[in-house]
Amino acid sequence: MAIQALFFDVFGTLVDFRTGVAREAERILKPLGFAFDWLAFADAWRNEYQPAMEDVRAGRAPFCKLDVLHRRNLTRILPRFGVSGLSDQLTDDLNLAWHRLDAWPDVAAGLSRLGRRFILAPVSNGNISLMVALARRNGFCWDTVLGAEIARDYKRKPGVYLAACSALDLPPSDCMMVAAHTDDLAAAAQCGLRTGHVARPDERGPGTGEAAPKAPVDLAAASLIELADKLGA
Amino acid sequence: MAIQALFFDVFGTLVDFRTGVAREAERILKPLGFAFDWLAFADAWRNEYQPAMEDVRAGRAPFCKLDVLHRRNLTRILPRFGVSGLSDQLTDDLNLAWHRLDAWPDVAAGLSRLGRRFILAPVSNGNISLMVALARRNGFCWDTVLGAEIARDYKRKPGVYLAACSALDLPPSDCMMVAAHTDDLAAAAQCGLRTGHVARPDERGPGTGEAAPKAPVDLAAASLIELADKLGA
Repeated sequence: MAIQALFFDVFGTLVDFRTGVAREAERILKPLGFAFDWLAFADAWRNEYQPAMEDVRAGRAPFCKLDVLHRRNLTRILPRFGVSGLSDQLTDDLNLAWHRLDAWPDVAAGLSRLGRRFILAPVSNGNISLMVALARRNGFCWDTVLGAEIARDYKRKPGVYLAACSALDLPPSDCMMVAAHTDDLAAAAQCGLRTGHVARPDERGPGTGEAAPKAPVDLAAASLIELADKLGA
Repeated sequence: MAIQALFFDVFGTLVDFRTGVAREAERILKPLGFAFDWLAFADAWRNEYQPAMEDVRAGRAPFCKLDVLHRRNLTRILPRFGVSGLSDQLTDDLNLAWHRLDAWPDVAAGLSRLGRRFILAPVSNGNISLMVALARRNGFCWDTVLGAEIARDYKRKPGVYLAACSALDLPPSDCMMVAAHTDDLAAAAQCGLRTGHVARPDERGPGTGEAAPKAPVDLAAASLIELADKLGA
């Protein structure tokens, strides 16, 4: 393998969205007198994620940023938790919960090592401003942000992976997609990219994530530190 | 001013393209027996820059990356310097001279200070891979690469500045364009951005650049260090 660039999935792979969204929802809604299962709220919000993107992927809706989809999904789930009458400003602030997620503990140190040897970019469904916010909060140093907003489509559509390679003028075989989700890696492999699996067995709570890839990958690691070890970075 | 992001012009403002292109041309062509005024060659190549982009800006040609325009311009000027019969591979390598430019001495330290307080992105006509190469070579840490390739048009078209603000979800008044060229800043100001002038009086040789802005700007500085001082970063 002559890898020059590493592309990263972000939600679940690098950052813990479930407890982060739950924490932000509690921080904003509890002082208003609301009380419910904050983790269930995070799960419900995230469950709207794939259907919302599917409209774009299928061509039924024009591309819009993930922040916009998140905002629409939020309006949809709030009533299910008995929340109504929230101002636009508070709803906007709550929507930015996704900008305030914390990374898994290995990520900043792992990226720092990997960045000495490889070009690093998120290839996430998250928009540019969201990626920038997460990177600044968690001390990631990206070479640039690639992904859905550049491609104007959502993973797992092939165009998202190929647009990332193309932005760097690299053939797909010189790029490795890194993710905790086998389906993301399988879609990247279909486009000719190399694949690196990072295990996040507790992604949405204990035992909920992939402890190992469910299909062959080029590399599998328990953390970004182990990934750096295996890639000689 | 409540500035949240700083956008940077790159060629001339952050990197010294003239001596860098001359050095690379000499490195590649001299061993093949060519000898001419390498600085004149760099100037000739750069002089094709605006006309090539003008075709895209005027809508006469579809957008293509600056690397592609540089390659086309290179083919145009080589015969003027008596160079013919260069292989495609060597021509490609020479074209990457623009990826191997060195920053002015204040830039890495200045960006490092500015980055603690502001979101930093190049808003250059250079393509993403070119910006990534220059950043890795010179130790810049961008939050993301914005500019022509994101906007699919070239400065000084307003869409390039506005696409950069939009990618960060910021109003133009929260963004400052930083450049050594008053025309770039004037175009940004027309779009509502703040403007910061950095003097590069020796940009293309002694006394060739702007020692001061030629029109009113929000801030003027002699270096990125002074810009950081003035912005309290």
